[in-house]
Order: sequence, then structure tokens, then C-alpha cells
Amino acid sequence: MLLSMKFNAVDQPFINELITVLGTDYVRFDEEAFQKYGHDETEDLVFYPEVVVLPRTAQEISAILKLCNASNIPLTPRGAGTGLSGGALPVNKGVLLSMERFDQILEIDERNLQATVEPGVITQVFQDAVREKGLFYPPDPASKGSCFIGGNLAENSGGPKAVKYGVTKDYVLNLEVVLPTGDIIWTGANVLKNSTGYNLTQLLVGSEGTLGIITKAVFRLLPYPKHDLLMLVPFYSAEVACEAVSAIFRAGITPSGMEFMERDALIWGTEYIHEEVWAIPDEIQAHLLIEVDGNDPEVLYKECEVIYQVLENYDCGEILFAEDAARKDKLWRIRRVVGEAVKSKSVYKEEDTVVPRAELPRLLKGVKEIGEKYGFKSVCYGHAGDGNLHVNIIKADMNDHDWNTKLPDGIREIFQLCINLKGTISGEHGIGYVQKSYMNIPFSAVELEIQRQIKNLFDPNNILNPGKLFDA
Amino acid sequence: MLLSMKFNAVDQPFINELITVLGTDYVRFDEEAFQKYGHDETEDLVFYPEVVVLPRTAQEISAILKLCNASNIPLTPRGAGTGLSGGALPVNKGVLLSMERFDQILEIDERNLQATVEPGVITQVFQDAVREKGLFYPPDPASKGSCFIGGNLAENSGGPKAVKYGVTKDYVLNLEVVLPTGDIIWTGANVLKNSTGYNLTQLLVGSEGTLGIITKAVFRLLPYPKHDLLMLVPFYSAEVACEAVSAIFRAGITPSGMEFMERDALIWGTEYIHEEVWAIPDEIQAHLLIEVDGNDPEVLYKECEVIYQVLENYDCGEILFAEDAARKDKLWRIRRVVGEAVKSKSVYKEEDTVVPRAELPRLLKGVKEIGEKYGFKSVCYGHAGDGNLHVNIIKADMNDHDWNTKLPDGIREIFQLCINLKGTISGEHGIGYVQKSYMNIPFSAVELEIQRQIKNLFDPNNILNPGKLFDA
Repeated sequence: MLLSMKFNAVDQPFINELITVLGTDYVRFDEEAFQKYGHDETEDLVFYPEVVVLPRTAQEISAILKLCNASNIPLTPRGAGTGLSGGALPVNKGVLLSMERFDQILEIDERNLQATVEPGVITQVFQDAVREKGLFYPPDPASKGSCFIGGNLAENSGGPKAVKYGVTKDYVLNLEVVLPTGDIIWTGANVLKNSTGYNLTQLLVGSEGTLGIITKAVFRLLPYPKHDLLMLVPFYSAEVACEAVSAIFRAGITPSGMEFMERDALIWGTEYIHEEVWAIPDEIQAHLLIEVDGNDPEVLYKECEVIYQVLENYDCGEILFAEDAARKDKLWRIRRVVGEAVKSKSVYKEEDTVVPRAELPRLLKGVKEIGEKYGFKSVCYGHAGDGNLHVNIIKADMNDHDWNTKLPDGIREIFQLCINLKGTISGEHGIGYVQKSYMNIPFSAVELEIQRQIKNLFDPNNILNPGKLFDA
Repeated sequence: MLLSMKFNAVDQPFINELITVLGTDYVRFDEEAFQKYGHDETEDLVFYPEVVVLPRTAQEISAILKLCNASNIPLTPRGAGTGLSGGALPVNKGVLLSMERFDQILEIDERNLQATVEPGVITQVFQDAVREKGLFYPPDPASKGSCFIGGNLAENSGGPKAVKYGVTKDYVLNLEVVLPTGDIIWTGANVLKNSTGYNLTQLLVGSEGTLGIITKAVFRLLPYPKHDLLMLVPFYSAEVACEAVSAIFRAGITPSGMEFMERDALIWGTEYIHEEVWAIPDEIQAHLLIEVDGNDPEVLYKECEVIYQVLENYDCGEILFAEDAARKDKLWRIRRVVGEAVKSKSVYKEEDTVVPRAELPRLLKGVKEIGEKYGFKSVCYGHAGDGNLHVNIIKADMNDHDWNTKLPDGIREIFQLCINLKGTISGEHGIGYVQKSYMNIPFSAVELEIQRQIKNLFDPNNILNPGKLFDA
């Protein structure tokens, strides 16, 4: 099945219809709007939409989608624009729909440990609001200070806490969704267990804004863990660091953070936040940032002892224990800015590889070998406890020709290695625009065709976020 | 969309084709086979198939499904036949496909805390096998000693541990599935995080054998918790017992079991396993069975103290602390047999209601009021920590006419109450055959139509488990 990609251009009558729905303030077609909404955080890609709309209600979105269907004009939904796979880029022009006015936390239900949220709420704002009531919403992508809950739902975002607490999909109970046809549905119920029909909730989560536009989300929450301990462990070999990761889990410990950073990732991140880089011996090649959390400090100290015992079997340097909140905060800030730090250093491409946890040393070794073969350097870091390694490929001295023509083959080799290790090509960033040509690596023709048919079922005219996920 | 329900009868040429695929030993059409495979554990329902097949490979299943498509003959897949919603009943005759020969645990991967299992493995056999390696597969339906992993996947089964550890869907990473068309696919990858395309894994889990036949499942596992503590708490009011449930969670405790039993449920269960019923004061109306687990006994004792403190605010009797493994085992056995015990007492119908946890008192009160209105008694028990209440409606003195004509209206009222409380009509048993006429209570016409279209996409000739989930 080929998804149709021939769209009409936005014209004045269409804009007038949008204004009828939204009023003039919320229909924009000025250069400033095009600049603002024409890019996300994916490399240096820019695509201008033809018109930007800022609805406030599900009913308005429904009306807009009906107009798009009637006029065969594509619509791209957008959260905060912090995505790394180009999911919010209006690559086929048309309408850019920003969810920024859906910014209300509608209910925090302390009796049931649940919350109902609009998708334009910033993740950290939501986390802070529930924390004030002693509750915990764990998914915490590096961009949590600016990204939207809706984008997290679209990409099934993770973050450091995922290793113990799971990803966005593990907290969603129910979604209000406007379908591409304009119909408004709820996908489930506000319950912890549900065996009532097909799981549309989980079909929508991670569908990257291609099946519907989420307008409300009901999440389950946890009691907030009262204490945590954090340590930074230097290793003489990056592969040995990766080996230690699996050993800690096998010792019965489930850390609340288990982050891997190659030497340069740590140093660049530290410089990026203008902190002084402490004396890291030249031989140190990588670090693990390990956090445990819970309600009882004694238990956490015991868990740290077990971790220390495991680490004695691996060749590591002196462990840095974060003694106070300020040090913990600094280490986490360094970790969170690594992506931005790399971006500030060089043209780059970020791959979001994921494999079973114990295969991480083989993945890392393979990435470096493939880099040598194709002539690129990489800085690797990420959520080692989940087997989720962000491979930042650095352009550095590679010439433009090789970067544009040879690199895709190198990336294919990296992704093929992931599949060989029983992993896949995106752990938490999504496929979006920049990875879609690689979808035939993890999936067979039949597997891809089913996904295309699901897309076609929800969006028969292919007007909602076309040009994403699938190579047309 | 109306799903076609006009099928051809199985004839000798068709049986000969099945024999060509499977050999004579694994194609059965004798009375003994029809009796064995003509019922599951749902009420007293019996539907004979026309032929029973017992394949051993995904390729054989593929060939059988292609034959069914070509001849327009329905096929009903079956695990161990322990289901409570009639999902495995061949209600349209045709082929009954038993998965019992898919009985191998293919791999327990201790490095990655994962296992690959065939769907005909008994849940407890799988649990015991991973436990020998210090690992934990938590989903534990009451029938765990006989049900199959495949049935658990089909119904998204839960059990007592779900309150802390989640249900079947929370452990599935990847599935090998034979589609109704005969195509064989994998739905995902063996990873803890995955943002690569639509979540077909979660679409298949809980789809009750209507979208495909699962032939391999990859699960994540946990380290086995080393200790647990169990207590039985009697209450003078069933509603007060339900109120206490929510309060314990709000105190920051996540028990590994939080089971509710009305007075009769406990007594009947105890009698059913031929244990002496201890002296339960007449005024006791309900019990909570509360378990905490973890690796540190001291922490568990502290958690029990918090639970005791919470319970001081509720009017309960003397707490029975299970002091040794034998007592724990006895209490859990009583809890597990309650369903069978009720069945042995009277003609009954079991409803699998689920609501947000704190709404449990209102649900219980409403069920009793509806019972009074329609003249039926009920015995209620279940996974209170999840808001999942099994309502066993007892025929007792109700005459056949009222049972057959009035009761469905009473059930509709119970289900409507669940929806009003933001819950739904099945928490873990599924919809199958016996609840399908109630699907228009939780879902709008549009929501149901999407589900039907998904069914149609996977199974265009509607040959795989027709007559389930949807009222044709």
C-alpha cells in the first residue's frame, strides 16, 4: 500500500475557514511563526508550514481535521518541538498545529493516585505539581524542563528513571484522542487493569502523532520515594563499564538510574554548563552514573554496598559519591546536557540504539569498529540499564561528500548490528522523519505493511503527519 | 461494518487437507475430543467443534489458517481452557486449535533477565523454572497451576501480584505471531524500551485470540524477592474494608498482594479445600489479605507497622499474621479457590468489574443495591488493590425465567455503574463470548467501529475466533 502524498496547497479560502473555527489570533502565517514552528531539535532541519494554528479544545481540533480532510491538506501536530527524530517537522508543508494552549493539569486525584493532564503541560511542571502532593510521575526525558507531556506520549519517551520505573507508556491509563476523521474518542478507562477490547491506549502511545491527536491523558502515579543516593564510577575501559551494568542487575539491585557516559560526553557536558572539569585521569575512558532510591536510607546504603562489591570485579577507578543535593544536581545536569553539548561542538547525527542490556559491550565495540570502517568518530552515552545507547556521530573532519553519501551506509550497519543483537533502532526518540528510511531493517515487508494498514485505517486520506514513520 | 458470520461446514476433503499438514495423530474428530475441547471454565457452556487440531510449529499453524481462509471455515485457538469469558469456545463450530504441544521454555537468559517461552507452557511451570535461577515472573492468575502462558497473553491476565508488579502485558517484550492470513511476524524486539513503529506487541496482548495466534513470547523477568509477610485482616463492614485499601496505598506502601474477600468467599474457599474454618465472629463481613515482599525482612516489618497504623483508623477485628510458609500457603490456596468454590455451590455468573481503587466502596455498595432490585445475591472478592472486584452472581433461589431474562439488565446496571465510576467491564478475564453484548456500555459506536476495523484488517475473512469480543 502506498500512502498518498499529493496534497493541495493552503489558500486564502482555507485560511478563512480556519479563522472561522479559531478566530484570527490563533491562525498565523507570518514569517516569525514559520521560523518558530519550522524546526524542532532534530539536527539543523527546517521546513516551513503554510499556516500555524493554535487550538484550545478537542472540538476545535476536530473541526480543523475535518477541514484538512475535505481540502486534502496535511496537518502536523507539534508539542514543545524538542523532538530528536523530526516528528514535529511539517515536511509536506500544510498546517502546523501547536498544542501549546492545552497547558492545564486538570486533576490530581490523590485518592486514586491518578492525574488527568492536557498534552501541552511541560513534563517537569507536571512532575513538580504531583510531587507537592507527595506523588511521583517518573518519566523524565533529558528535555523535561521544556518538553510537553504530549510529545512524551507521541514518542513513548523514557529518561534515566525508566530503568527502574518504566517509560511513558507504563503510566498511561486512558487517552482522549481526536482521530484524523474528526471523531473524538477515549481509548480506555481510568483503571490499573483492563481486559476490555483491543488496547488502543498502547497503540496511540508512541504512534508519533500519525494516528490521532491526544487531547487529554490520564496517568497513574506512585508515592514519591523519599531518599536517593548517587555515585559516579570511572572505568579504564568503556566496554568494561558496559559489562558491569548487567552484573549489578544480576546481583538483585534495580537502580533508579544507570547512565553510561564516554569520557568526552562527561567532559563536554561539564564544560557546557560552565562547571570546572575535575581532574579525570587520562586513562579513564567512561563513567557510570548510578542512582538508587527508596524510602529507607539504610536500605539504600546496603544496596550501594552490594554495588561496590559487584564493582570490585571490574577494573574501575575511584568512586565519587555525591554527598549532598548540590552535587547530585550537578551530576544530573551534566548528564542531561550531553546531547546539547555534542550539538554545540560539531555537526552530528544522533542514533537512539537499544539492545538487551547484556549486549551493550558488543554494541559499543561494534559502533566503534563501524566508525573506523566509515571514517567517523562517535560519542556514546545513554541509559545503560535499559540497553539504550545514544550514539552521537560527529562530523568533525569528515568531508561533506562522505557525510552525505557514505554515512547512511554506516548507520545501516549500526542498526543491523542492533537487530543482530535482538535490539532495535529506537529506544525512546522515535522514528519520525530522519529514521524512516531505516524501518526495513527491524521490520519485514509484512510487518511494515500491517503498520501501514493501521495508519490507513485511522487516517484514510493520510493527512495527519504524513511523511513520518514510513518511507512513502 | 458487519463481520461476516456465514461459514462452511468442515467436510472430509478439508479434514484430509488438515491430515496432510499434521498427520493423522494430530487431527481429531472423535466424541472424546469434542467433549474435552467443547468447553472451558465459563459457566456451564458447551460448544462442540467439528474437528480438533494439535499443531507443533508456527509453520503448521500458518498452513492451517490458509486452509481455513480458502474454505471459509472458522478456527478457535485454545490454551488450557481455563478462561472465564468463553474465549476458547468454538461457538461457530469449525476447527478447534489446541496449543498444548507448544510446551517448551526455549530460553532463560540470565544475563539479560529475559525468557523465551512457547504459549502452551503452564504459567506455574514457567514461574518455577525461572525461580530456580533466582528470577521472578510475577503474573499469577488463580488458575496458574493449569492455565497456559498463551491464554494469559490472550486475556492480559493479572492475579494477586499485579497490584505491585503489573499484569501480563507489563512483562511481554516481543511476540512471534501467526496472522490469520498465515503470515508469521515478530511484533517488536527483545528490549526494555522501544519507540520503533506502532506497538503491535500491546495490540496483540489482550486481543483474545482474534488477531493472531501467538507462537513464542519473550518476557522480561525480575530478581526474585527474597522475603514476604502475609496478614489477614477481618472487618465488620465490607465497605470499610474497601475504604482501608486506598488508605494503605496513600500511606506510601505498595503491597505485593491486597485481596478482598466477602465473608462467604473466605468460608466457602476454606471448606472447598477441606480445611477447618476457624472461628470467624458472626459480625465479620469481609477480610483483606495483605502481603508485602522485598529483600530485607526489617523493611517488611516496618511496612507492616505502617499498615497497622493505617488500619487503626478503620473498624477491624484481630489481625491474623501468617507465621510460617504453611499458613501463608493455606491462606493463598483459600483465596485462589474461591471462584471454584462458588461454582460448586450454585449456578452463577462471574463479572470481572474494575474501577479506580478508591471507588471500590461505591462499587460494592452499588452491586448490592442492584442485587436487591433484581433479586439476586452475590459473593464478591478480588484484587482490591487494583480496584478489580469479581462479582459472583448466585442463582440460588432465583427462578429460571428471571435468571435468563431479568439478570442481563441487572448486569448492565452493574457495568454502567463501573463506567460511571470511570472503570470498565473487565479487569483481567476478557470479554470473549459471554460479555460481548455489553461492549456498547464502555465504548461509543465510533470506539467499537475502530476495534472492528482492526479486527477486519488482521482477519479480512473473519475466520479467527469469530463471535468473540464483538456482537455480530
